[in-house]
Amino acid sequence: MDLATVIGLVVGSLLILGSIMLGGSLGIFINIPSVLVVVGGTISTAFIRFGMGDVINSSKVAMNVFITKQSNPQQVIQEIVNLANIARKNGLIVLEQQPIEDSFLKKAIMYCVDGHEAEFIEEVLKKEVSLTVERHDVGRKVFAGMGDAAPAFGMIGTLIGLVQMLANMSDPASIGPSMAIALLTTMYGAILANLVFLPISDKLALRSQEEERIRRLIIEGVLGILKGVNPRVMEEFLETFLPPKERSASDKK
Amino acid sequence: MDLATVIGLVVGSLLILGSIMLGGSLGIFINIPSVLVVVGGTISTAFIRFGMGDVINSSKVAMNVFITKQSNPQQVIQEIVNLANIARKNGLIVLEQQPIEDSFLKKAIMYCVDGHEAEFIEEVLKKEVSLTVERHDVGRKVFAGMGDAAPAFGMIGTLIGLVQMLANMSDPASIGPSMAIALLTTMYGAILANLVFLPISDKLALRSQEEERIRRLIIEGVLGILKGVNPRVMEEFLETFLPPKERSASDKK
Amino acid sequence: MDLATVIGLVVGSLLILGSIMLGGSLGIFINIPSVLVVVGGTISTAFIRFGMGDVINSSKVAMNVFITKQSNPQQVIQEIVNLANIARKNGLIVLEQQPIEDSFLKKAIMYCVDGHEAEFIEEVLKKEVSLTVERHDVGRKVFAGMGDAAPAFGMIGTLIGLVQMLANMSDPASIGPSMAIALLTTMYGAILANLVFLPISDKLALRSQEEERIRRLIIEGVLGILKGVNPRVMEEFLETFLPPKERSASDKK
Amino acid sequence: MDLATVIGLVVGSLLILGSIMLGGSLGIFINIPSVLVVVGGTISTAFIRFGMGDVINSSKVAMNVFITKQSNPQQVIQEIVNLANIARKNGLIVLEQQPIEDSFLKKAIMYCVDGHEAEFIEEVLKKEVSLTVERHDVGRKVFAGMGDAAPAFGMIGTLIGLVQMLANMSDPASIGPSMAIALLTTMYGAILANLVFLPISDKLALRSQEEERIRRLIIEGVLGILKGVNPRVMEEFLETFLPPKERSASDKK
Amino acid sequence: MDLATVIGLVVGSLLILGSIMLGGSLGIFINIPSVLVVVGGTISTAFIRFGMGDVINSSKVAMNVFITKQSNPQQVIQEIVNLANIARKNGLIVLEQQPIEDSFLKKAIMYCVDGHEAEFIEEVLKKEVSLTVERHDVGRKVFAGMGDAAPAFGMIGTLIGLVQMLANMSDPASIGPSMAIALLTTMYGAILANLVFLPISDKLALRSQEEERIRRLIIEGVLGILKGVNPRVMEEFLETFLPPKERSASDKK
Repeated sequence: MDLATVIGLVVGSLLILGSIMLGGSLGIFINIPSVLVVVGGTISTAFIRFGMGDVINSSKVAMNVFITKQSNPQQVIQEIVNLANIARKNGLIVLEQQPIEDSFLKKAIMYCVDGHEAEFIEEVLKKEVSLTVERHDVGRKVFAGMGDAAPAFGMIGTLIGLVQMLANMSDPASIGPSMAIALLTTMYGAILANLVFLPISDKLALRSQEEERIRRLIIEGVLGILKGVNPRVMEEFLETFLPPKERSASDKK
Repeated sequence: MDLATVIGLVVGSLLILGSIMLGGSLGIFINIPSVLVVVGGTISTAFIRFGMGDVINSSKVAMNVFITKQSNPQQVIQEIVNLANIARKNGLIVLEQQPIEDSFLKKAIMYCVDGHEAEFIEEVLKKEVSLTVERHDVGRKVFAGMGDAAPAFGMIGTLIGLVQMLANMSDPASIGPSMAIALLTTMYGAILANLVFLPISDKLALRSQEEERIRRLIIEGVLGILKGVNPRVMEEFLETFLPPKERSASDKK
Repeated sequence: MDLATVIGLVVGSLLILGSIMLGGSLGIFINIPSVLVVVGGTISTAFIRFGMGDVINSSKVAMNVFITKQSNPQQVIQEIVNLANIARKNGLIVLEQQPIEDSFLKKAIMYCVDGHEAEFIEEVLKKEVSLTVERHDVGRKVFAGMGDAAPAFGMIGTLIGLVQMLANMSDPASIGPSMAIALLTTMYGAILANLVFLPISDKLALRSQEEERIRRLIIEGVLGILKGVNPRVMEEFLETFLPPKERSASDKK
Repeated sequence: MDLATVIGLVVGSLLILGSIMLGGSLGIFINIPSVLVVVGGTISTAFIRFGMGDVINSSKVAMNVFITKQSNPQQVIQEIVNLANIARKNGLIVLEQQPIEDSFLKKAIMYCVDGHEAEFIEEVLKKEVSLTVERHDVGRKVFAGMGDAAPAFGMIGTLIGLVQMLANMSDPASIGPSMAIALLTTMYGAILANLVFLPISDKLALRSQEEERIRRLIIEGVLGILKGVNPRVMEEFLETFLPPKERSASDKK
Repeated sequence: MDLATVIGLVVGSLLILGSIMLGGSLGIFINIPSVLVVVGGTISTAFIRFGMGDVINSSKVAMNVFITKQSNPQQVIQEIVNLANIARKNGLIVLEQQPIEDSFLKKAIMYCVDGHEAEFIEEVLKKEVSLTVERHDVGRKVFAGMGDAAPAFGMIGTLIGLVQMLANMSDPASIGPSMAIALLTTMYGAILANLVFLPISDKLALRSQEEERIRRLIIEGVLGILKGVNPRVMEEFLETFLPPKERSASDKK
C-alpha cells in the first residue's frame, strides 16, 4: 500500500474542501454539466491520443501504485548473493530448484539454467528492460496527457460560459452567479490536473525508474553468477546501487 | 478502424455541444468570420512551416489512422518463426515463394533471397527504419504545429474584436455581445487545438513508435534467420518485444 | 520559388485584414509608435542575442527560402549512379570532366579525383555536413528568438499604454479608445510571431534537415563509388533515403 | 555555511515585506486558510509524486545546503598528488595508513589497497557516481515539483475565492476586500515558488554537478595512481578540472 | 567591442522610452519601491540559485561580451598552418620559440614541445574544452535564471499592489493610479527579462559555442601537426570549420 499517495490525495482534497466550506455552502461549487465537460473532454482526448486499451491499462497501472509494493533492492541483493553462493558450491543447475521471489530474477536464472550463452542472456535481459521501460512510459504519458487536457477543457468550458453570459446581459444581477459557474470548469480542470493527473504521472515515472534500477542490478548480478565472480566482491559491487546508509555493515569500512 | 479515435472525437464534440445547448441557443456560438480567421490562419502557417506537399500528406496520414489497422506483433513473430523453420529445412531460396503479409518483412526476406551479405541487409534495413521514422515525424510535426497555431490565431481574432469593441463604446448595450463574439475565436482555437490537432499529433507519434518497434523486431528476426538461429530460441528472444501477458504459453515458465 | 510560403503569408495576412475590415475601419488598427516598439524592440534584441552579421545573414537565408529550389534527391541519386557507372568503366580520374550540378557532390567527387584516402574524405565530408547544420541552426535561432521577443515587446507596449491610461482616468469616454490602442501592440506582437517569425523559423529547420539528408545520401554514394560498389546495389541502397512511392520502379518488387 | 543562499532568502523576503509595509498594514496580507491551501496542497502533491521518504529526505538535503561545505577541488588535487608521490616511493599498501579527508577518495583508495583490478575499480566508482547523481536528482525534482505545484494551488485558491465572491455579490462594498483575499493565494504561490522552491531546486542541481565533477576528478586521479603515472603529469592533467585562474602557478606557463 | 549588443540595448531602451514620453510624463513610470522589488528579488534568487561567486563572475563575463573580441577562426587556421610548415622543416622543438597569439593554441603547442604522447594531449585538450564549456554554461544559466525570475517578481509586485488597492477602495478616484503603480512592477520585470537578461544569456551561449568550435579546430590542427600531416591537406580540412565564403581562394575549386 503506497501510503504517501493516499495521504497526499486525501489531505489535498480535504484542504480544498475545507477552503470551500469556510466561505459558505458547497452547493455553489457543484455543477454537473461543468464536471461532464472537463472530465469527459479529458477522457475523450486520452482515447484519441492513446486508444482505449492504453487508457484502461494505465488506470490499472495507476491503481497498482496504491496497492502493490515494490521489490526491496536490499532483499534482491541478498537473494542474488545467496544464489551465487549456491551456484559456486553446487553448480548452476541446482538453481532451478531454488525458490525465487522476484519474477525478473527468476526468469534470468532460468536462462542460466537452460544453458544459454552469457551474451545471449545479457542481450535478451537488456532488451526486456528497455522494452518494459518503453511500455511503462505509455502509462506515464496517458496521465501526463490528461494533466495537459484537463486545464484546457476547463478553459473551454469557461469560455462557453462567458460567451453565454456576455450574449445575454439583460439582468445585471445574474452576471455574478453566471460568471461563478463559468469559472467552475477552470477550477475543476486545475484541481484534476494538479492534484491527480500530473502527480500520478510523476509517480509512475519514479516507479518505473526504480524498477529499472533493480532490474539493471539483477542483470549485473546474474552475469556475475555466470562468470563465477566471488560472492563477496559481487555484494560489494551490487551495493553501489543502494544509497550509502542502506548498505550492509561489512561495506562500511 | 481506429475506434478509440472516432469515439474520442465524437464524444468530445458532443460534450462541448451539449454544454453549449444547455445554456441556450447554438446560434450565438457560430460566427463565420471567426471560423475563417482561426482555421484559415492555422492552415496558412502550416503551409509556411512545411509546404503544401507535407500538409496534404499529413492529412492523408491522419485519415489513415482512422481506417487502417496496424500489424499485430504476435502475428509477425509467428510469421518470422514460420519462415525460420522453412529456411532451416529447405534453405533460404525457398522463402521467395512464401506468401508474406507484412511489406517490410517481405522486403527484408527478398534481400536475403537475393544473396546480399548480412551486414549490408542490416545496414539497409536499419537506415530504412530510421528514415521512415524521420518521415513520419513530419506528419506529427504538422499537427503539433497546427495545435500551436490555432490558439494563437484564436487570441489574434479576440484581440481584433476587443480593439474594435473598445474603439466604439458609444452603445453600452452592445459591449456584452461584442465581447462574446470576440471571445469566440479564442474558444475555437482552444477546441481545435485540444480536441483535434494535439491529440492527433500524439496518436501519430504513438503509431510511428509502434511501427518502429515491429520493424526493429523484424530486423532482429531476419538477421536470426540468416545466422540460422534455432527457431525456438528466436521466438523466445522476439517475444521480449511483447508485453508479458501477450507472450505465448511456452514462454510463461 | 517556394509557393507554399508565399501562399501561406498572403492568405494569412488577407484573412486577418478581412477580419479587421468587416468590423469597421482599418484606421484604428494602425498606430506607428506601437509598430516601432514591437518591431524595433524585436530587432534590437535580435542584435543583442546574435550580432548584426547573423541577423542580416538570416534575413538573406530566409529570402532564399522564397526564391531558391532545393536539390531533388531523386535526381541526385541518378547523378551518383551515373557517376558510379562511369567510374566503373573508365576509372575515378574521368569523373573530373563530368558536369556535376550539386555543389556538395562536386566537391566530394573532387576529393576522390585528388586521390585522398576514403577515411579522410568521409571525415572531411561528415565534418562539413555537421558544421553546415550548426551554421544553418543560427538562422533558425534568429527567427525563433524574434518569435519569442515579438509577443514580449507586444506585452511591454500594452503595459505602457495601460499605465498611461490608468494614471489619467479623468475622462471616462477616453478609456475605451486608450485601451484599444494599448492592446494594439499585443496584437502586432502575436501576428508577427505566429504568422511570420515562428513559421519561418520552422521552415528553415525543415530545409536544413532536408539538405542534411541529401548530403548524407551523397556521402554514402561517394564512399560507394570509392569502394567500387555495384551501381545497381548502390541505387537500391540510396533509394532507402526516398519515401517508398518516389523510388524507381525497379525497386518496387 | 552557504552564505549566498541565506542572504538571498533574507534579502528577498525583506524586499517583499518592505513593499507590503510601505502600502499599509501587513494584516491584510495574512490569511491562514489561504496559507493552508497553498502550502498544504503543495506538500500533498509532493507526497503523491515522490513518497514520504523522498520528501523528508529532500528537506534534509536542502538543509545541508545551508550548513555543509563542499570539498575544495584544489585540496582534493593536492591530496591525490600527495598520495601518488607516496605510492610511488613506498607502494600502494602504505596508502591504507594515510589520513584521507574526502570520503569518496578514501573509498577509492581502499579499493586499490584491497588489490582489486583497475577495471573493476573504475567500473564500481563510475557506477557509484552515476547512481549518486540519480539519487541526488530526486532531491532536485522534489523541489522543482513543489515549485510547479505552488502557483497551481495558488490559482486554485484564487478561483475558489472568486467563485464565492461572484456567487454572493449582494454587498458591492465587500467585492474589493473579497477579491483581495482571493488574490492572496496566487501571491503566496508565486512567492513560495520563485523565492524558495525553484531557486533551491537549482542550487541542488548545481551542487550535485559540482560534486560529480570532483568525483570524476578523483576517479581519474586514482586510476593514474594505479597506473603509476608521474605525479607532476597527473597534477597538470587534473588541473584541467579547475578554472584557469585557480590552477597552481607551475601550470601557468 | 561588440557593437551589436550596445546598439541593441541602446535602441531598444530608446524605443521604450520614446513610447513612454509620447504618452505623457516619464514620472508616472518611475517608482523606486517597485524597482527594488523586481531588481532586488531577481538578484536575491540568483544568489540562492548560484552563490555569490558565480553571480559576480557572470556579470564580469557579460561585461567582457561588450569589450573583448573573439579570436578570428581564419587567423587561427593561418597560424596553425604556419606552425605546421615550421614543424615540418625544423621539427617540433622550434615551435617553442614561435609567438602564438591564441592562448589555447599556445598551451596545446607547449604540450607537443614537452614531448607528451598524442593520446595524452588529445585527452587533456578535449577535457579542457568540455570543462570550459561546462564553466561557461554557468554564466549563461545565471542570466537565464534572472530572465525567469524578473517577470515572476514583477507579477509578485503587481499582486501586492492589487491586494492593497482592493482592500482599500474607499476612494474610487484613486483606483486608476493605484493600479497603474501596481502594473509597473510587471512592466519592469518584462523589460528587464526581454531586453537585458534573456538576450545576454543567449549571447553568452552563442559566444561559448563559437569559442568551442575554434578550440575543436585547434585540437584537430595540433593533432595534425603531431602526425606530420601535409600543411596543404590540413588547411583544406580545417577550412571546413569556416562558412564556404570565408574559405581561402585555393579551396574554391
